[in-house]
Amino acid sequence: MPVSNEQKILRILRLQVTDKPGYLAKIATILGELDANIGEISIFSQGPDYIVREISLQLKDEDHLKKIVCSIEKLDGVTIDDVIDPVEQLHEGGKIGMKSRVPLNNINEMRKIYTPGVAQICKLIQKEPALSKRFTGISNTVGIITNGTAILGLGQIGPVAGMPVMEGKSVLFEQLVGISGIPILIESTKTDEVIDTIKSIATTFGAIQLEDIAAPECFDIEDKLQKSLDIPVLHDDQHGTAIAVLAALITIARRVDLNLNTSRIGLIGLGAAGTGIARLLMPFGVKEILGADLRQDALDRLKADGGTPTTIPDLMSKADIVIATTGCPGLITPQMVRKGQVILALSNPDPEIMPEVALDNGASFAADGRTINNALAFPGLFRGALTAGAKHFTHKMKIAAANAIADQTRAKDIVPSILDRTVHQEVAAAVARAWNEEHA
Amino acid sequence: MPVSNEQKILRILRLQVTDKPGYLAKIATILGELDANIGEISIFSQGPDYIVREISLQLKDEDHLKKIVCSIEKLDGVTIDDVIDPVEQLHEGGKIGMKSRVPLNNINEMRKIYTPGVAQICKLIQKEPALSKRFTGISNTVGIITNGTAILGLGQIGPVAGMPVMEGKSVLFEQLVGISGIPILIESTKTDEVIDTIKSIATTFGAIQLEDIAAPECFDIEDKLQKSLDIPVLHDDQHGTAIAVLAALITIARRVDLNLNTSRIGLIGLGAAGTGIARLLMPFGVKEILGADLRQDALDRLKADGGTPTTIPDLMSKADIVIATTGCPGLITPQMVRKGQVILALSNPDPEIMPEVALDNGASFAADGRTINNALAFPGLFRGALTAGAKHFTHKMKIAAANAIADQTRAKDIVPSILDRTVHQEVAAAVARAWNEEHA
Repeated sequence: MPVSNEQKILRILRLQVTDKPGYLAKIATILGELDANIGEISIFSQGPDYIVREISLQLKDEDHLKKIVCSIEKLDGVTIDDVIDPVEQLHEGGKIGMKSRVPLNNINEMRKIYTPGVAQICKLIQKEPALSKRFTGISNTVGIITNGTAILGLGQIGPVAGMPVMEGKSVLFEQLVGISGIPILIESTKTDEVIDTIKSIATTFGAIQLEDIAAPECFDIEDKLQKSLDIPVLHDDQHGTAIAVLAALITIARRVDLNLNTSRIGLIGLGAAGTGIARLLMPFGVKEILGADLRQDALDRLKADGGTPTTIPDLMSKADIVIATTGCPGLITPQMVRKGQVILALSNPDPEIMPEVALDNGASFAADGRTINNALAFPGLFRGALTAGAKHFTHKMKIAAANAIADQTRAKDIVPSILDRTVHQEVAAAVARAWNEEHA
Repeated sequence: MPVSNEQKILRILRLQVTDKPGYLAKIATILGELDANIGEISIFSQGPDYIVREISLQLKDEDHLKKIVCSIEKLDGVTIDDVIDPVEQLHEGGKIGMKSRVPLNNINEMRKIYTPGVAQICKLIQKEPALSKRFTGISNTVGIITNGTAILGLGQIGPVAGMPVMEGKSVLFEQLVGISGIPILIESTKTDEVIDTIKSIATTFGAIQLEDIAAPECFDIEDKLQKSLDIPVLHDDQHGTAIAVLAALITIARRVDLNLNTSRIGLIGLGAAGTGIARLLMPFGVKEILGADLRQDALDRLKADGGTPTTIPDLMSKADIVIATTGCPGLITPQMVRKGQVILALSNPDPEIMPEVALDNGASFAADGRTINNALAFPGLFRGALTAGAKHFTHKMKIAAANAIADQTRAKDIVPSILDRTVHQEVAAAVARAWNEEHA
């Protein structure tokens, strides 16, 4: 079986190479013969008669790397200085840091930033608490909070091992919409403790993003927090994913002339993502939702929400649109695919069915989780909510976000690029408008 | 009574001024006649026949400002565009924000920062938790945590009104020693709740700075937290202040040839700062400490620590060195001062006795709280502890910090400038060395 790009490993070879024509060609030839994909080639430093080059490679696995290192070591005029893992390199020291927005060069600045000047601002906020929005960063800050019970598809690996994901979210917040995202790790798996801790520190933030918290606890934690806090609380794994899926469905429906409201939609997997999708599709107007899951509490939840529990074969035979979020690669066999079905197999890194296989077996449309990502939704969603001073997220805000994403999608794509800043601005504007229309 | 610079208000006048010679002179003349101190004059923008200038002023009070505005309004060829409070201006939008340390320009970078690349780093940390020090920002992060019960000298104004102080600390951490300081506001005044909340989120940080928490709760909170956590915990109001005071005493002792260990030291005020000072001077070697306070629990605490409770008159008549941290301006009358006494009257913004008055009445040395500030100590203290991987702060680390500050003090000063980066580097190095020597 060929290795997908998704599963390949990235390495940078730092090589001391004799500075004469022909040496780079020798290296490239060997790499080509050994089936390595070459990416960027850059110059790291230069000596009197040599160049230190960094060559980025996509490789099958560690054995593939070993073979390449062996062959290059045998080359005359080439020495391996280092083999670098670029993902590790990027994570050295962490991906984020708190920075000052004001200069500190002289004692006058010091006396405004700190004592005695700062006392004046404290007193203003004491008299009129709403001024904290103006004179502190609170209303531009989102707490990115996890207890580490469902980090990516890796399961309960604990909050500290989940920190790189939280830092990643913080990078996206800052780079895409200028929000200050503060990771908070909670060392508890008990629903009540998690809720109490977050309530106790909630005034630090303008909004709260719950992140990678396992089902079914995530539902209770989000509900109870939102009921007791007057700032927006959102469990991204439920609603971020749901908004991205709805955006993709809106795009697909436009393309293949499908009416989502009268389509029968089947959800395979009713964890945080599956449940979040069901709970967004219903207020959007979808009449019939089927769902399959191994857990009885998940099926009960769907039923309480107005959906119909069933088995996977039954669901596959009836649904016009299938959305799988199970974490089980290959769960959907080619034989199950019905002609004309739309199939979104979203588990990462390996989907329930490869899109090519689904299409080959009669699907009218198929995609996986690489493109349909919650990072399309959450930055603009929070930006819009903070800008509007929203107290919570409404269905209308989430649907507005999905429509804005769909409207920004270019012909032939299912969703737009996550890195397109315009998308996030448009989502933010639509979300703020939706809140303001409901609360004018 | 003349207004001290400390009590003056800062304002910037933004004036549209006719662009002809002589106009600025007219303005300056009026300002001079009305007793306003002029600071910087800068050009904000320029029109066809006018210049918009910003003139920084130190004024007595709001009435003084009104008089000046009235007089300038009457000037031909000058219009007031705005009156700006520079402290408010600096606080607009808050003083800090979380920033990405990595670029996000293309999908390759995205895939390293976020999914799927980040999963590899999560798995590494799951297998070997110590790698979180290398691959996340945790070990360079300090939680700056308050419940708002004793913000500056303003008392219990609540955590949100205290946020500008927390942001100010974060600015100092970043600018002076490159630490990422995360303000956390806790909405509780109950000791147990504060402790539980902090314990629950402690893995987010490499160290914890408790900030502006009232005595006597602060002692219990710090003690219990440090006992249950294996990262350094420090209540800055106790120990930061104590270290700055000890540094000043070391400097003064060198100047006036005083032996601190055989001096009788009197502490007026035994709150967080006074108690922190007592608890640092004792392991430093001071034999005799007297203390006065209105609260019996404060006196009991001093006695338990090995000091001698007494009255203010008795203390003033016996102590060689007097350190006041009461928050009561003018508490020490000129008559109380004994010839040759060293007097540090540290309450901000108005000291227990003005240094000039103390010196006029026979004190050999006198200073107030403007120079002796905990910001001299805490940045280097935390930098050193994080660098050394310290599990808690020891007396030796604190004394090393005080000695390093004293060693960096220039002739004629009592302590060095807070903005001198070298001071903080030296403190950090001394603190790290002290931990390593004790734990080799």
